[in-house]
Amino acid sequence: MKVGILGATGYTGQELLRILKTHSEAEIVYIGSSTSADKKIAEIYPHLTDSNMLILEKEEVPDVDVLFMALPHGIAASRADELLARGIKIIDLGADFRLQRPEIYEEWYKLNHPNPQILNEAVYGLPELYREEIKDRSLIANPGCYPTASLLSLVPLLQAGLVQKEGIVIDAKSGVSGAGRGVNQAVHFAEVNENFKAYAVGEHRHTPEIEQQLGLAVGSSVIINFTPHLVPMTRGILVTIYADVNGKVSEKELRSCWQDYYAGEPFVHLLPEGVWPQTKYSYGSNHAFLQLKYEPRTGKAVLVGVIDNLVKGASGQAIQNMNLMFGLPETTGLVTTGLWP
Amino acid sequence: MKVGILGATGYTGQELLRILKTHSEAEIVYIGSSTSADKKIAEIYPHLTDSNMLILEKEEVPDVDVLFMALPHGIAASRADELLARGIKIIDLGADFRLQRPEIYEEWYKLNHPNPQILNEAVYGLPELYREEIKDRSLIANPGCYPTASLLSLVPLLQAGLVQKEGIVIDAKSGVSGAGRGVNQAVHFAEVNENFKAYAVGEHRHTPEIEQQLGLAVGSSVIINFTPHLVPMTRGILVTIYADVNGKVSEKELRSCWQDYYAGEPFVHLLPEGVWPQTKYSYGSNHAFLQLKYEPRTGKAVLVGVIDNLVKGASGQAIQNMNLMFGLPETTGLVTTGLWP
Amino acid sequence: MKVGILGATGYTGQELLRILKTHSEAEIVYIGSSTSADKKIAEIYPHLTDSNMLILEKEEVPDVDVLFMALPHGIAASRADELLARGIKIIDLGADFRLQRPEIYEEWYKLNHPNPQILNEAVYGLPELYREEIKDRSLIANPGCYPTASLLSLVPLLQAGLVQKEGIVIDAKSGVSGAGRGVNQAVHFAEVNENFKAYAVGEHRHTPEIEQQLGLAVGSSVIINFTPHLVPMTRGILVTIYADVNGKVSEKELRSCWQDYYAGEPFVHLLPEGVWPQTKYSYGSNHAFLQLKYEPRTGKAVLVGVIDNLVKGASGQAIQNMNLMFGLPETTGLVTTGLWP
Amino acid sequence: MKVGILGATGYTGQELLRILKTHSEAEIVYIGSSTSADKKIAEIYPHLTDSNMLILEKEEVPDVDVLFMALPHGIAASRADELLARGIKIIDLGADFRLQRPEIYEEWYKLNHPNPQILNEAVYGLPELYREEIKDRSLIANPGCYPTASLLSLVPLLQAGLVQKEGIVIDAKSGVSGAGRGVNQAVHFAEVNENFKAYAVGEHRHTPEIEQQLGLAVGSSVIINFTPHLVPMTRGILVTIYADVNGKVSEKELRSCWQDYYAGEPFVHLLPEGVWPQTKYSYGSNHAFLQLKYEPRTGKAVLVGVIDNLVKGASGQAIQNMNLMFGLPETTGLVTTGLWP
Repeated sequence: MKVGILGATGYTGQELLRILKTHSEAEIVYIGSSTSADKKIAEIYPHLTDSNMLILEKEEVPDVDVLFMALPHGIAASRADELLARGIKIIDLGADFRLQRPEIYEEWYKLNHPNPQILNEAVYGLPELYREEIKDRSLIANPGCYPTASLLSLVPLLQAGLVQKEGIVIDAKSGVSGAGRGVNQAVHFAEVNENFKAYAVGEHRHTPEIEQQLGLAVGSSVIINFTPHLVPMTRGILVTIYADVNGKVSEKELRSCWQDYYAGEPFVHLLPEGVWPQTKYSYGSNHAFLQLKYEPRTGKAVLVGVIDNLVKGASGQAIQNMNLMFGLPETTGLVTTGLWP
Repeated sequence: MKVGILGATGYTGQELLRILKTHSEAEIVYIGSSTSADKKIAEIYPHLTDSNMLILEKEEVPDVDVLFMALPHGIAASRADELLARGIKIIDLGADFRLQRPEIYEEWYKLNHPNPQILNEAVYGLPELYREEIKDRSLIANPGCYPTASLLSLVPLLQAGLVQKEGIVIDAKSGVSGAGRGVNQAVHFAEVNENFKAYAVGEHRHTPEIEQQLGLAVGSSVIINFTPHLVPMTRGILVTIYADVNGKVSEKELRSCWQDYYAGEPFVHLLPEGVWPQTKYSYGSNHAFLQLKYEPRTGKAVLVGVIDNLVKGASGQAIQNMNLMFGLPETTGLVTTGLWP
Repeated sequence: MKVGILGATGYTGQELLRILKTHSEAEIVYIGSSTSADKKIAEIYPHLTDSNMLILEKEEVPDVDVLFMALPHGIAASRADELLARGIKIIDLGADFRLQRPEIYEEWYKLNHPNPQILNEAVYGLPELYREEIKDRSLIANPGCYPTASLLSLVPLLQAGLVQKEGIVIDAKSGVSGAGRGVNQAVHFAEVNENFKAYAVGEHRHTPEIEQQLGLAVGSSVIINFTPHLVPMTRGILVTIYADVNGKVSEKELRSCWQDYYAGEPFVHLLPEGVWPQTKYSYGSNHAFLQLKYEPRTGKAVLVGVIDNLVKGASGQAIQNMNLMFGLPETTGLVTTGLWP
Repeated sequence: MKVGILGATGYTGQELLRILKTHSEAEIVYIGSSTSADKKIAEIYPHLTDSNMLILEKEEVPDVDVLFMALPHGIAASRADELLARGIKIIDLGADFRLQRPEIYEEWYKLNHPNPQILNEAVYGLPELYREEIKDRSLIANPGCYPTASLLSLVPLLQAGLVQKEGIVIDAKSGVSGAGRGVNQAVHFAEVNENFKAYAVGEHRHTPEIEQQLGLAVGSSVIINFTPHLVPMTRGILVTIYADVNGKVSEKELRSCWQDYYAGEPFVHLLPEGVWPQTKYSYGSNHAFLQLKYEPRTGKAVLVGVIDNLVKGASGQAIQNMNLMFGLPETTGLVTTGLWP
């Protein structure tokens, strides 16, 4: 299986390189980057010890079986038609194919969608929700990091009607690598370290992505409060979700719902009662961990989910999708557990 | 003004020492600790460069004007009567005098209150709410760190009827020093660093303290969801609060309410529109910073407040209370701004 | 290949579990721990998602092919004879078999060596120095973390006579996981974070281990200055070594010496000129990275080496040794590159 | 006393603002910055709560008593003549006046010195070495952060002839704020956090500054090995220094030398035997802490010194110099002890 990567020198691109290196069925034959063309990958990332592979212009994509695109939004959508026509399957780690309605894309990304017709061809690449569709498609919209953690927690309970779709609050916390490798004052070590803040309050672009999928789960529109925060750590996302339960639902029923939904799933784990997820449980791995509590005093359920934003929240999930698309065991190349400590 | 400290070697005790060192009117004459008696303070904290003061048994309190008590709960309440009778004013940094109803104390602290009669004598030491009462009393219940940040954000809006008392969610995040200086697996550097988690979900003892004060603000009982999280940093608390606004309240009205309430307050600051609080703004200082946003899509207001948990959330506020009790300018010894970076 | 682990719940034990999980030839059949016997491993480490394996008393070692011992010093030496007699190969991650002379052990570890006769049977498990001996032996003294980084940097240059054995200074820096999982004030997050210190100055037990191997490299006794420091990070060791070069040696010759010595080595990498090692290059991996500079102003060479203290500095190296002992490809189970970022 | 600051929005400029805010004798009347002119200081630093002061062009310096210059090198030297002629005293936090010989400046800073004649007028602003000269001068070259920590440790012992001037190794470690507020890949949180590295090996510009002062201490030229490292923390410098003692000097004599030299010094503290400095001891304060050990096995003394790089290593020391120049008590505005934890 020949694999190409566009945008290989960003954090998600580099994470694809790291994981694919130990993937038994995939061979990276092409690495493209506009900013680092003609350099060897080891010049950018000296720790990739045996990689003398040359980075090429991102325009010259050869005939690969599958192409990962980790590019600024707008670019993937412009180039997809041509690549698909050549028989190249696409897994896009950006936002171009995630939102079904182009007007929502334009509202939140402040950009006319360059290729709205293609949106029907894409499938939302969250295997725990869309496994069968992923197997059949050639264009995967790999989910955002916050949506992955949020949807894994919420969708089963919403779908089962155990929690109400009104008034949902998602209070999310992410490590700094989620902001990408670009530099600006907000990622300066001295301004992040020993510091914690909310950002993009009421304005984060993952909001409509989450709302779309929650809406699909219940069959009607869902509006949420989503507030992301920046944690002084490199990797990891934790979401704390508050939702009103429907009528007389017990904590046991809520847990059973998750348990049934994720029975047999290799990457989603409901922790034993009383054990709360820590982002480090998923560090460097494709595993997600969940826990919940029903608070009878208020009638709300508190859901907590964690993932590694660069793995299950990006590159690991992309490879999970690749495995599905090519009929491989879903865990190929993704067997590692989290790094502890 | 002669000052004593009981429990001087914990983090809040040590923070009292640090701040009082530059306080022009206070002289520390007595430091008591059960665990470190007969040592010099510089043996415990070598950075307290000129302190050769001897730590004494915590039983032998001399005739000081004011005594700070930073002790495990249960102890302060047992000893208060005797100390007050000797004319010693008490500022307690623990929980013994914070809850007005002993049965609530017993429910959350799993301990029969050792001295329920005394609860009427205590005033809740949040100067921005109870300034006048604090001036007149001899027994101050210094608020918890989470309650300080939560109440400063919520009380004005609740009191003014701008937000609803039902369905309030407080999602709180704290640095590790909030857990105190005691050692256990949960504070091991390698298990906290590069990690983020929720803890004590639905069970944190600051919940009834917040609820009591919110209830007093609206004149009827308030029940909240309160979820604390541990941030891999040493100092700082940020609370993100979600509350439904009442009817047609605008963001401007919400901001005006805060602005009016805190006009002239030396330590509480509403940031300019669009500037969101960071815990580091208050690092090592007694300042609190606030910001909010009204989200018309959901009808909720999102409030964010930050403090330094050891200063405005503990020892700085205790000294602010002392200043009030002794008729000193409220900012005496507390003029420092946050350390940046 | 049946594998057992004694002391499985410490950080090096857990790291063995993590790595062996993806090792194609090894099956863990026994996990022993005195502190956690009769618990399931997932009770201690919830992130080890599919491990329902029961932890057993560390006394009941079954007939495994190889046993990893990660125990406090003194214990492994007492038990080794019996285990070896049963045909069990031993890889000891502690210090009991590292020092050839029992009197040196007693001087630095303040303990009479419980089994001095056995020291001749052990081989020092640094594959880059002792590969052939490791293949033939049943008792491996897995090196300490600081010695691994120090010896990889120094031995080739000393052996080749390019640097002088007198006056060597090793200034070493380690992440906190090197101190193990036990709790005490010195590993409290709030006392390590935003802090840096030297410790055990002139007294660290890895000193004689390094000196012994340097002595073997030059054929006469070597005395060094070794100063370890604690870095506010979880994983990683960096050593900065200062050594006087012999006569008119050029930087090029020093680099060539390393290059020749490590040609073909899968885990030791000389970085390109001007690229200096960062501990993160080896994060979670078995790779070591080296760089040097000759300073003509002083006649000293400055060598810098990095490893992950828990992988190449402990458990990864132990598995590298296991691979050698059982005739497997040396990199089996150890193909991962460092996690970045 | 009217004070101006040029370059007020960098980290050292901002630290001057923080400290001067509590200085009883100084009034800031002018803040200049080329990058932030016409903004209010609170727009750059929202935590400076009561500062509505306008930032001005750095060209328009009014008639202040003393001007702090925190500018890129080359600029201060060009402007000093004009300012001094107007009777304005200058404390320069940059490198323009630190090196007495312009050719050394040119060699290490790759810039022709713009005003070599002025170098004679400047005094090196390390009060513990040059207190009397500082009182008499109008132009202060405030020392670099690494030189401050290194010289405080070494000068007394070298001057007393207790250690040899040949073969000195200074292995230095700094927090990230030492790199300034500018952004680049090397200060991206995700590339610094959980990482440790050496940098500028053999090339750091503080090398000749240290060598010049050591040379003045012994009366002949001194050449050292100086290697800086980047610690994943915001503030703090620790230097570990290795020096051969002269003949039969004992550890006691070395300690006595320090003790005598720093008797009565308000900011330099020799810790009790066995207590090693931690950078956090000086966090946010102007205090330096020292410790040493003589190692008879090698004949070397190991010296360790810590400071806060932004305080004693920059802005605090600048204010200490200002106090001296204006006949104020040396500790005015600098009474704070380190923040712990």
